[in-house]
Amino acid sequence: MRNNKNIQPRKTLNSIQPYSPGKPIWEVQKELGLERVIKLASNENPLGPSPKAVAAIQASLSELNRYPDADTTAMKQSISAAYGVTPQQVIATNGADELITLVSEAFLEQGDEIIVPSPSFSEYDFGAHIMGASVVPVPFAENFQFDVEAIIAAVTEKTKIIYICTPNNPTGTVISKTDIEKLLNAVSDVLVVIDGAYSHFADAPEYTNGIEFVNAGHPVLVLQTFSKIYGIAGIRVGFGIAPEAIIQSILKVKEPFNVNALAQAAAVAAISDEEHVRASQEANKAGREQLYAAFTDLGLNYIESMANFVLVQIGAEGEEVYKALMANGVIVRYGKTWGLPDYIRVTVGTPEENEFFIKVLTGLLAKQV
Amino acid sequence: MRNNKNIQPRKTLNSIQPYSPGKPIWEVQKELGLERVIKLASNENPLGPSPKAVAAIQASLSELNRYPDADTTAMKQSISAAYGVTPQQVIATNGADELITLVSEAFLEQGDEIIVPSPSFSEYDFGAHIMGASVVPVPFAENFQFDVEAIIAAVTEKTKIIYICTPNNPTGTVISKTDIEKLLNAVSDVLVVIDGAYSHFADAPEYTNGIEFVNAGHPVLVLQTFSKIYGIAGIRVGFGIAPEAIIQSILKVKEPFNVNALAQAAAVAAISDEEHVRASQEANKAGREQLYAAFTDLGLNYIESMANFVLVQIGAEGEEVYKALMANGVIVRYGKTWGLPDYIRVTVGTPEENEFFIKVLTGLLAKQV
Repeated sequence: MRNNKNIQPRKTLNSIQPYSPGKPIWEVQKELGLERVIKLASNENPLGPSPKAVAAIQASLSELNRYPDADTTAMKQSISAAYGVTPQQVIATNGADELITLVSEAFLEQGDEIIVPSPSFSEYDFGAHIMGASVVPVPFAENFQFDVEAIIAAVTEKTKIIYICTPNNPTGTVISKTDIEKLLNAVSDVLVVIDGAYSHFADAPEYTNGIEFVNAGHPVLVLQTFSKIYGIAGIRVGFGIAPEAIIQSILKVKEPFNVNALAQAAAVAAISDEEHVRASQEANKAGREQLYAAFTDLGLNYIESMANFVLVQIGAEGEEVYKALMANGVIVRYGKTWGLPDYIRVTVGTPEENEFFIKVLTGLLAKQV
Repeated sequence: MRNNKNIQPRKTLNSIQPYSPGKPIWEVQKELGLERVIKLASNENPLGPSPKAVAAIQASLSELNRYPDADTTAMKQSISAAYGVTPQQVIATNGADELITLVSEAFLEQGDEIIVPSPSFSEYDFGAHIMGASVVPVPFAENFQFDVEAIIAAVTEKTKIIYICTPNNPTGTVISKTDIEKLLNAVSDVLVVIDGAYSHFADAPEYTNGIEFVNAGHPVLVLQTFSKIYGIAGIRVGFGIAPEAIIQSILKVKEPFNVNALAQAAAVAAISDEEHVRASQEANKAGREQLYAAFTDLGLNYIESMANFVLVQIGAEGEEVYKALMANGVIVRYGKTWGLPDYIRVTVGTPEENEFFIKVLTGLLAKQV
């Protein structure tokens, strides 16, 4: 027998932290022997998938023996029409996650730096570490507000990408249009990625999804996903919008058939499903209010959110409460992942799911008094 | 307006050649104003998708708002049971294409080398070039037979991966079990990737899909896909089987939700769809014979194939014939991509598709006499 232990991965991969996804419902049911388990851990759409997207998938099944369209022609047309850009300014990917990896592969060399207002989505770090680049975290200001001066101050000659997740995961806070302008005017030769995975839930007047900066020719890549408002996280589809030269660079590292055929059909249908989008927005707004009211009743500090989740401060018993919620059939995300051990992040569910979560949480906190 | 032209991709990406996929049917119909167009260009299964896979997808649609299982638990269980390995020896990917990229990201540094018996599948080169590694092509011996001595002779201290595509795309030829043993005994510290995308079509007695070498502990990664025999190229799902330490290294660079939920469900169903597999094998064997007989009648030299395509030598008029086939509604692949301008590669279609192709080809060749 040969010793396959001689096959060693690249040393730089040692810096990669494994991603910890929200536990699936079936796993918690099985592990804890629970019948009713609700998942408020992955910021999924509680209304379910866009019905138009599901119908489009069904209509495409008989042709599944064919490879997908490598150019994602129909999808790029739909997206460019919806956002007022050209198809050449669009790239479609296997979820927005893949776009983060591709951007990293296109622009980051060993020793480069990325800037991430932190805590934020962990995949930015993953992309950097794959390429041997390092992550410069910039802490948020009070109440998890973006600190644009601190971001600008962190830029060095090695900075290649600045990630702005707005609304930010896991805080739910947004950066203002004025602050993005300030940032773009202060830095040059740096790609600014504006991750708008939760943009459809944001209703703050100062909010921007960043498309206007692409149209103005700034080095901005707007990142979007079909996993949140459109409710099709399971099929994996996301996209980016940027000036054409930037898109061309990212296309170089893209595998030809990265976006599956059903995802392409679903995306085209979902983006036109205005009814599902509106219903999802309204349900989310009402759900956030439902959670805010409960947190206020319970005397818990929470961060006002422009997304479909709320970060709430439990206190020193954060981990205990997280585990007890799980034991009672409510999966949320524990803040320790983001260096916030006092917090949990809860996704806005259906009114019934929110109610169940509130009831369980209320019971747990009452016991602790 | 800022000058986004300052945002330059990594220099090493200049060596990446864009992939040229087979033209989609709709595109040829539109460009050439044709009604009947058949595609024999992408080695897709002409019988269509596994019916069990399609049913499994339909049963999963209502949960599409949920993220896929990041661990691909059910899929790894099905695969490990089918191949007699452990789930820890399996990795699931967004098509086998993604696995090639991930292997490259896990093991290749700038300046490393990969060895590819050539011509072969272009994605091996793509993966190497992303990482700044270089490709050492090793020509085939006569009649596109693998030249294991030449492969061994090409190994240097920089060699990290040897790709063995068997049956090889685009030649259809296989490497013998004896030759793989010879290779594995001659090299050390090199990962040998055995790409069995077309393994289910191979019926040569000396053929091996390589699993036995994984089980013996050799540094072998067996690559497999659901895009060929299972007929679900559109949903993108492939997998790798290797000793656990190698799988662990590749998992480090994998995005958490790389395999979509419908692909996971489809893969589990397809691997158990023995009826569809058997029917596809039999149809392919009969189709190859149908093509061989026609090529013999036409006096054309062809390479006997262990896959679901045949490489056939047209002669100096290769390009002309390729274009004329297209103009008559038959999409095949022109050999120039692989440095074989005298050849075309034709996928085995349904009996009717093969007949149509033969009729058009016969007409074209008659005209040229």
